[in-house]
Amino acid sequence: MTWVTGGEGSPYGVTNLPYGVFRRGGHGPRIGVRIGDFVLDLAGAEAAGLVLAAGALGRPTLNDFMALGRPQWTAVRQRVTELLTDAAHRPAVEPLLVPLREVELMLPFEVADYVDFYSSEHHASNVGQIFRPGQPPLLPNWKHVPIGYHGRAGTVVVSGTPVIRPTGQRATAQGPTTGPSVRLDIEAEVGFVVGVPSRLGDRVAVADFADHVFGVVLVNDWSARDIQAWEYQPLGPFLGKSFATSISAWVTPLDALADAFVPAPDQDPPVQDYLRDVPHLGLDLALAVEWNGERVSEPPFATMYWTPAQQLAHLTVNGASLRTGDLYASGTVSGPERGQVGSFLELTWGGAEPVKFADGATRTFLEDGDTVTVTATAPGPDGTTIALGEVTGTVLPPR
Amino acid sequence: MTWVTGGEGSPYGVTNLPYGVFRRGGHGPRIGVRIGDFVLDLAGAEAAGLVLAAGALGRPTLNDFMALGRPQWTAVRQRVTELLTDAAHRPAVEPLLVPLREVELMLPFEVADYVDFYSSEHHASNVGQIFRPGQPPLLPNWKHVPIGYHGRAGTVVVSGTPVIRPTGQRATAQGPTTGPSVRLDIEAEVGFVVGVPSRLGDRVAVADFADHVFGVVLVNDWSARDIQAWEYQPLGPFLGKSFATSISAWVTPLDALADAFVPAPDQDPPVQDYLRDVPHLGLDLALAVEWNGERVSEPPFATMYWTPAQQLAHLTVNGASLRTGDLYASGTVSGPERGQVGSFLELTWGGAEPVKFADGATRTFLEDGDTVTVTATAPGPDGTTIALGEVTGTVLPPR
Repeated sequence: MTWVTGGEGSPYGVTNLPYGVFRRGGHGPRIGVRIGDFVLDLAGAEAAGLVLAAGALGRPTLNDFMALGRPQWTAVRQRVTELLTDAAHRPAVEPLLVPLREVELMLPFEVADYVDFYSSEHHASNVGQIFRPGQPPLLPNWKHVPIGYHGRAGTVVVSGTPVIRPTGQRATAQGPTTGPSVRLDIEAEVGFVVGVPSRLGDRVAVADFADHVFGVVLVNDWSARDIQAWEYQPLGPFLGKSFATSISAWVTPLDALADAFVPAPDQDPPVQDYLRDVPHLGLDLALAVEWNGERVSEPPFATMYWTPAQQLAHLTVNGASLRTGDLYASGTVSGPERGQVGSFLELTWGGAEPVKFADGATRTFLEDGDTVTVTATAPGPDGTTIALGEVTGTVLPPR
Repeated sequence: MTWVTGGEGSPYGVTNLPYGVFRRGGHGPRIGVRIGDFVLDLAGAEAAGLVLAAGALGRPTLNDFMALGRPQWTAVRQRVTELLTDAAHRPAVEPLLVPLREVELMLPFEVADYVDFYSSEHHASNVGQIFRPGQPPLLPNWKHVPIGYHGRAGTVVVSGTPVIRPTGQRATAQGPTTGPSVRLDIEAEVGFVVGVPSRLGDRVAVADFADHVFGVVLVNDWSARDIQAWEYQPLGPFLGKSFATSISAWVTPLDALADAFVPAPDQDPPVQDYLRDVPHLGLDLALAVEWNGERVSEPPFATMYWTPAQQLAHLTVNGASLRTGDLYASGTVSGPERGQVGSFLELTWGGAEPVKFADGATRTFLEDGDTVTVTATAPGPDGTTIALGEVTGTVLPPR
């Protein structure tokens, strides 16, 4: 039971407590934790001696705090829970609560490297059927290798940042041409944020996932399908993706997701030893995609073939080191049904089957002015539900 | 004429003056500039009021200095040239010269995003012939799009850092297996370092190259060909590259390369407007690759099809922003002859034609204990030659 007004029964109750970075008035960025429709100013709380985190909560990003490691993450979470539930702390803590409507939410951490995986079998199969009709929908490596690639860390932006339609080359029957993308799409994903680094040459075992990963963000990996299709061979997506990747302002700590781990889909053929995770667990996150305010899809994260622990083990099997702030995303989350896909490429089947909105409007890909919002919920303790914030963005024309 | 002993006639003479970061004894990292076989301590010089750079020379990396922009870069270079040529400055400056043999060279800048291009027509054609015999050696997009992809910034290491052989999946006739790479290779490249950032949504025109790019490093993009071959479809190279990318400790400023710009190869078909650079200039850098001390190749950078200005314009045509510390590399530098290739994949034609060394040893790919060193020279003023440092690494077995 929290004493914070409106906190009890909220999907941002005391069992959730996601971290973010906020700004209020003319003040610099501060770390906070969300409770109901308030942000608890953790910089202020640490300065007042109410919580101890080696000064890391006084910084302008979560990075130093995330570098401290799981014992400290858990200790701070327990202490914050005490502060928000024990009424004896109310007089000291209440002045540190800031109404959410008064703050601007910032990029919560400095992104080190950004990796994007391709872990949904349904998504990979759909893309295969759309682009290589009549051929096997999955490439031969897909069930052996958690396919991924590096994206542009410098263009990861916080939810709410406008997305400027990218310009680039696309193929036409008359040869290549350059102009604003005409097939601008989304990819609804879940991202994992690394707190504890690893040493160059070391591998991180699947079992060590929770020692390194601090928490989870929602991701929209905006994608220009026409640019991507012309550029991606043989070195993969580049400018079709690098113009913007949006993440939620709230980082949900793994500790808040203890009740969301569920058995992941069986893997057949058997995976290589370094990818074998026992138990083999995914996360039961229910995503929702809203296009101009209308819910068009509900991608179920529990259907993902490769788990976040497997992705981390794969990312480091070659000895690549991790840094605090590394972000790796799941790839588009798509379930088996058309109403469960995480991209408009799939929702409109390559643009062939437009979406019809309640007001009569239709869409294949994004038009200027369109807004897309991805949200997610997860099971919390005792039958409750927690929310994972949102990642939203509105498309603007090129400058 | 420099008054520094051994500086005159050196390939690191007063017309070169590359920047680096060094450590000496127990002291922290400091910015320095190389002259002959000495390093001029620029942190000390700025602290003593001998050179002014808004305090940026007192930092542990070049990033703040690189962010200042070309007028400041040029002013500092002119002032350092004065200090090293006017004997009147000798009494104040000489105590700031540190013998190169006494310092440890560090990663000279914090890498923001790392992009690797694929800009050598000879290299792309060779790879095409090796992997897709009987088919057109270049893919249809290659002469239209400067193909590139994002690499792992966190595993960019300074020259001299040992390279631990990566472990990963490779395909065999019996299916995939996991183990240390058996086809470990190099890619001799040239990297361009961004100093001045750009705003999200803006494009950087080809003509603005020198406003953003501070200088040049040598790059060895170590590559595990067996891992790469199995993983790279459809999203490009990932673990086959991400275990280590080595760069030279010295960043050669563009100002030192004024005499090295030469007309780049004609481009046919004509390129898209945003890639049209007049004049169309590449850099006449003569690379050399030494394998265990024996020179095995001399890749000519002047043969590169896409120029660094075109690469920068391409990288940003979609509105992707630049950050100080962004590094983009040319891709493997290969000339038309077998003795001019920048990878062992090409030198041994896919491993089919081993290299024979003077001592009777043979090699296809790298063995543990092997050392590879890439060097380069460029034309300086008045018929002189400047050197671009070196990028070297020795292969160690997996931990």
